[in-house]
Amino acid sequence: MFREKIKVFDCTIRDGGLINSHNFDDRFVREVYKALSIAGVDYMEIGYKNSKKLFSPKEFGKWKFCDDRDIEKIIEGIESRTKISIMVDVDRVDVEDVKPKKESPVDMIRVASYVKDIDKAIFLVNNFADKGYETTVNIMAISRALDNEITEALNQLESECKANVIYIVDSFGALYQESTEFLVKKFKSILKTKEIGIHAHNNQQLAFSNTIEAIIHNTNFVDGTVYGLGRAAGNCPLELLIGFLKNPKFDIRPILDLISKEFIPLREKMEWGYIIPYAITGILDEHPKAAMALRNSEKKENYREFYESLVGDDLD
Amino acid sequence: MFREKIKVFDCTIRDGGLINSHNFDDRFVREVYKALSIAGVDYMEIGYKNSKKLFSPKEFGKWKFCDDRDIEKIIEGIESRTKISIMVDVDRVDVEDVKPKKESPVDMIRVASYVKDIDKAIFLVNNFADKGYETTVNIMAISRALDNEITEALNQLESECKANVIYIVDSFGALYQESTEFLVKKFKSILKTKEIGIHAHNNQQLAFSNTIEAIIHNTNFVDGTVYGLGRAAGNCPLELLIGFLKNPKFDIRPILDLISKEFIPLREKMEWGYIIPYAITGILDEHPKAAMALRNSEKKENYREFYESLVGDDLD
Repeated sequence: MFREKIKVFDCTIRDGGLINSHNFDDRFVREVYKALSIAGVDYMEIGYKNSKKLFSPKEFGKWKFCDDRDIEKIIEGIESRTKISIMVDVDRVDVEDVKPKKESPVDMIRVASYVKDIDKAIFLVNNFADKGYETTVNIMAISRALDNEITEALNQLESECKANVIYIVDSFGALYQESTEFLVKKFKSILKTKEIGIHAHNNQQLAFSNTIEAIIHNTNFVDGTVYGLGRAAGNCPLELLIGFLKNPKFDIRPILDLISKEFIPLREKMEWGYIIPYAITGILDEHPKAAMALRNSEKKENYREFYESLVGDDLD
Repeated sequence: MFREKIKVFDCTIRDGGLINSHNFDDRFVREVYKALSIAGVDYMEIGYKNSKKLFSPKEFGKWKFCDDRDIEKIIEGIESRTKISIMVDVDRVDVEDVKPKKESPVDMIRVASYVKDIDKAIFLVNNFADKGYETTVNIMAISRALDNEITEALNQLESECKANVIYIVDSFGALYQESTEFLVKKFKSILKTKEIGIHAHNNQQLAFSNTIEAIIHNTNFVDGTVYGLGRAAGNCPLELLIGFLKNPKFDIRPILDLISKEFIPLREKMEWGYIIPYAITGILDEHPKAAMALRNSEKKENYREFYESLVGDDLD
């Protein structure tokens, strides 16, 4: 029996943009939007809203900035009930760039924040909520946050923040299901008035199972990406999530089509997925950046040396 | 804190042999055995013991038959505490081919059986146990067995069978963690005098997480294969399992080396892993054979058509 409150949230273009400097062309993004719409996916996150004072549009594609008119060109003429989301990072967005909801094609704004930046995240979310958007706070790198810091942040979020959803983000792909269960229960115990979300990375092939684990314990916002596309090891594969959920509104067929036609060719050009250096950073609860650097070097398959470079630091 | 009773069981050569008609050369098999030995893996399964009256050694490699002298050539001169296992299928083994343990390099014999063949499995296991081997019964395709049949089989195994371990085998990669938990608890409740094992397939990227789930509920024999090698979607990646377990006797380094040097090149020649048609058969709880046929055809990337061919049968 399905739980109607579960919302499937696709972040293919947003998270995938971290591999290609947000340079997906309009045709590709429209194909993704079309397929998600037919599949019944609830949200599609299309990119980041970064300040052009901080990042140059010459260096990055349009999905690092998400101008409303660029989004309008994607969704134009496609029948859809899929809502549009954008993400902002604390300290990288100019709130003046965000117009009131009624003037924008965007439905939801998600604020990515480390635990330590929670005050900044709350400021941003409340600004966007007041402008009429659905909002979330996505707590990144949760596997390395201290329990007392999480407790304090959650209490603040519950009492001061207008976000509809608070996300557990396993940025390093380090969580096993016992820790996922622990965190979801902790979030639920403090966040009485908000939904919980999960965004999992697939370093240890646990993104899908951690998402199921979160669902079992009443997480209702679940992130996925088509064919698991995303930085480094990528994300929870959307097709598996759709295959698992029993809500008859979802249809896996358009996603299968999309993978055949667009993602198999794309995988020849872009690298993501189960790759041993990303598994190693997941096992060690480390940011994947060292592994990403390795994959761009001649030593890309020297796994043992890479492992030893990470565990070899002197302890103090 | 680690649980000393947990035994890591590698079946790389045995399950991988299902892709290449058991044609791994001696050099490769010795490299695997060496690495597993240094890594501290408890068992290595090297192949099947099939009757040469039923299968021709001209059509299949030596690891479909596992003559003792072929095994001796592999392990010769390599210092190791890793035990050797072979697998037999019900109705395909000639029990006369199995010599007493004291004359053989084999330590364990695992009998693969469907629930319906449990009487035959018990007959074989008791024969091998009487010859001095450690033994298991591996109940295949458990996701499609009726609960009353499982109950009856487990009661028989508990009262009539000398096997040390009874395995849950998710042949189709169809189990989610809730069903894994259910099955492990059921097995534990009936099998008071035996250990439980799990052999998971990775169609839905759940082999590792289902193995963790089984460990949480006191499964002590856990199967994996190097880099997930195995038929179709493959198995639980041994490197993730070693990365997860906390017993200091395990060392992931030789496995990382082995993947770099042997398995990355091998993957260019043999196909296994997360491939959408195998995900589809997992989602639908079907044998992967239709997907394997698809992957050998020109329609190998026609996922939607393949999905529809499986769900399109008329109901009655």
